[in-house]
Amino acid sequence: MSQPADLVINARWVIPVEPADVTLEHHAVAIRGGTIIDLLPQDLARTRYRADRTVSLPDHVLIPGLVNLHAHSPMALMRGIADDLPLMRWLQEAIWPAEGKYVSSAFVREGTLLAIAEMLRGGITTCNEMYFHPHAAAEAFDLLGMRAVIGLTTLEFPTPYASDADDYLRKGLAARDAWNGHPLIGFALAPHAPYTVADATFARIATLAAELDIPIHMHIHETAQEVADSLAQHGKRPLARLAALDLLGENFIGVHAVHLDDSDIELLQRHRCSVAHCPTSNMKLASGIAPVARLLAAEIRTGLGTDGAASNNRLDLFQEIRHASLLAKVSTFDATAVPAHTALRMATLNGAQALGLGDRIGSIVTGKAADLCAIALDTFETRPCFNPASHLVHVAGREHVSHVWVAGEIRVNKGDTVLQLNDTELLGFAALWQTRLSN
Amino acid sequence: MSQPADLVINARWVIPVEPADVTLEHHAVAIRGGTIIDLLPQDLARTRYRADRTVSLPDHVLIPGLVNLHAHSPMALMRGIADDLPLMRWLQEAIWPAEGKYVSSAFVREGTLLAIAEMLRGGITTCNEMYFHPHAAAEAFDLLGMRAVIGLTTLEFPTPYASDADDYLRKGLAARDAWNGHPLIGFALAPHAPYTVADATFARIATLAAELDIPIHMHIHETAQEVADSLAQHGKRPLARLAALDLLGENFIGVHAVHLDDSDIELLQRHRCSVAHCPTSNMKLASGIAPVARLLAAEIRTGLGTDGAASNNRLDLFQEIRHASLLAKVSTFDATAVPAHTALRMATLNGAQALGLGDRIGSIVTGKAADLCAIALDTFETRPCFNPASHLVHVAGREHVSHVWVAGEIRVNKGDTVLQLNDTELLGFAALWQTRLSN
Repeated sequence: MSQPADLVINARWVIPVEPADVTLEHHAVAIRGGTIIDLLPQDLARTRYRADRTVSLPDHVLIPGLVNLHAHSPMALMRGIADDLPLMRWLQEAIWPAEGKYVSSAFVREGTLLAIAEMLRGGITTCNEMYFHPHAAAEAFDLLGMRAVIGLTTLEFPTPYASDADDYLRKGLAARDAWNGHPLIGFALAPHAPYTVADATFARIATLAAELDIPIHMHIHETAQEVADSLAQHGKRPLARLAALDLLGENFIGVHAVHLDDSDIELLQRHRCSVAHCPTSNMKLASGIAPVARLLAAEIRTGLGTDGAASNNRLDLFQEIRHASLLAKVSTFDATAVPAHTALRMATLNGAQALGLGDRIGSIVTGKAADLCAIALDTFETRPCFNPASHLVHVAGREHVSHVWVAGEIRVNKGDTVLQLNDTELLGFAALWQTRLSN
Repeated sequence: MSQPADLVINARWVIPVEPADVTLEHHAVAIRGGTIIDLLPQDLARTRYRADRTVSLPDHVLIPGLVNLHAHSPMALMRGIADDLPLMRWLQEAIWPAEGKYVSSAFVREGTLLAIAEMLRGGITTCNEMYFHPHAAAEAFDLLGMRAVIGLTTLEFPTPYASDADDYLRKGLAARDAWNGHPLIGFALAPHAPYTVADATFARIATLAAELDIPIHMHIHETAQEVADSLAQHGKRPLARLAALDLLGENFIGVHAVHLDDSDIELLQRHRCSVAHCPTSNMKLASGIAPVARLLAAEIRTGLGTDGAASNNRLDLFQEIRHASLLAKVSTFDATAVPAHTALRMATLNGAQALGLGDRIGSIVTGKAADLCAIALDTFETRPCFNPASHLVHVAGREHVSHVWVAGEIRVNKGDTVLQLNDTELLGFAALWQTRLSN
């Protein structure tokens, strides 16, 4: 007797990520109610399931939807506004003044919509988001149907969004209350960085994170200056300070983690923290090269993030996958560092686990949500193909993404987005804010 | 009185590369007989020229066609055949055995055709080529209408192509004689590397290069091992050995140039040599990071190359532009290193000058050949756009290339190649050789 399925996807190759290092050929994924109910050979799928819809992907690789472990989505509206500058000048001369003048609920909503379209079309199905106006971000992810963990950003200094740390937290927690229980949207506490948040606020955030059982998402050890300043001001390296404030734990996601010594790596390992590696941003802002091979050797869960579009300038996780592999190789003089399956796991399962979503997304496993991405390897730039996993790292790009599903709902079909907004509307937001920001 | 033109291209932005650091708005390029006859504001072009054809590019940047300063095009047939291996194991265990078994005139012709289609669609109009069977490579470039400088590869050891250094040179020079005078095809002497060519052969190549007035194109200082081996065997670093053999000069193109000390940089500078920087290949094979900021500061002409598709694995000069900029920034901790216009110049004019073609290609200047590339910035991933030059480095990719012309002839139109071969034929070559190489 065959069983009902909403959708069966037949793919030339499937890389399920779990188990590790496996590439299946001629397999099918069966989906019902937004959930993966089976992964099996196509021959078997034909007799076992009667599907309402079948999608045939004869030259494609099917992988779990990508997890962007660090983004500032609204900054899509500031894409390329200030390049070829170091981090502190970039922040102080270009980004913070523009944000102080223009960031509003509308800016966040419209910038996030633009970023979501870009991310979905590039195979990203989950975004770990950090910016202001979390309610506006939630509206955007809800409207376009993308999974997100939205950071409740906290700073000591005032912005047009909030006046002080208490105000940031109050507004953030109100947004979380309003959206609590949404199937695709969760929240994290997001203290901006060690150098913008005071000890008392960190202590409050540690308490809140434990009470609410949600992640803590923050920038750490991005530049050598940050580490030196912390030593001067607090007598401790930033991670040691955070450890003393009881902030480190399995729910802690440290973004960048470029400048780490042995004691830092030991702290991350002991507290089972995660790292969001953002290789393109670290290169573009000349921050440095994170010791990814050492982090992975220490079994520190390391995912990948795009950072914001003003410091990258693409929200393209395929680029981050390639850069994670290439930078690890060249910085260790070891061409075997971060091999293809490892890079793909970083961009999927590692990110999902870092967000506390490892039981729901990040691999193609029965019982998980059907967040999926198909890549077409049928063009002359992608042929021949001896090893599909390696092709996803070194040959294909987001431009080869053909289909994307979030919880079984199609979001990209044959390369085109299928969203509540069309390209013209999205380009309208970009044009509007470019005019404002140029004045 | 208006003047006749074959083609007028009206573009939203034109980056002519010469003069430096300029982005023109609403300009037009007029072309007659394959040559650029004017670059002027669109308003003026409308009255000054009556064109047989006009192309309107309202959201596009027009740049000179890209110059790939180092390629092994037939290796497109071995794309991804052996990844995550260091250079010497990659060569000795994977590449050289496969080449020994399969490389033939047909392999070179068909692999080069596949590579040309990929390069043209990605905006590359000139290729500095190094492989075996130069006559077969010339046939391919001639058939698809791409500009090339084909290396007459020389090694001491036998391959199915030739038996010893004399045999390589004899066959290479015969191919040059047969194709001499072709409007798009030139030749270079291409001793493979310091560690595969003997002093006597280098001496002969120095004499030939002077007689024939053509470039010398070779790998140098790619790995630390190569430098150490040369010191042990010859008592000199490779570049010092080449200088003693009178091989260095304005026509010398050193590929990779990763491991350079002050004396090496001084030699390259004194002899006015060029460097072909191949950042992706250097990262993937874990060779190291070339000191590009130092080379540019020393005014050493530095262009960009993709290397072969087995060590990259994309023949994508937009990727090399981005990597040249990002790697220079992160390796010097200076976010201002290799700014956007410099990276674009490396990929165009610097490469053209290195090949001795600086008077004919590499910039959009009256009197030069109409080798041109247009990039469409009209998608939601490329908006907003505050600075088109920066967008070409950090935002757009080869997938946004819309139009390509070689000597005024259209080769890519609205993203599709317009060639003597179609995609099905090209995919056929890839499939055929994948089957053979997999056995």
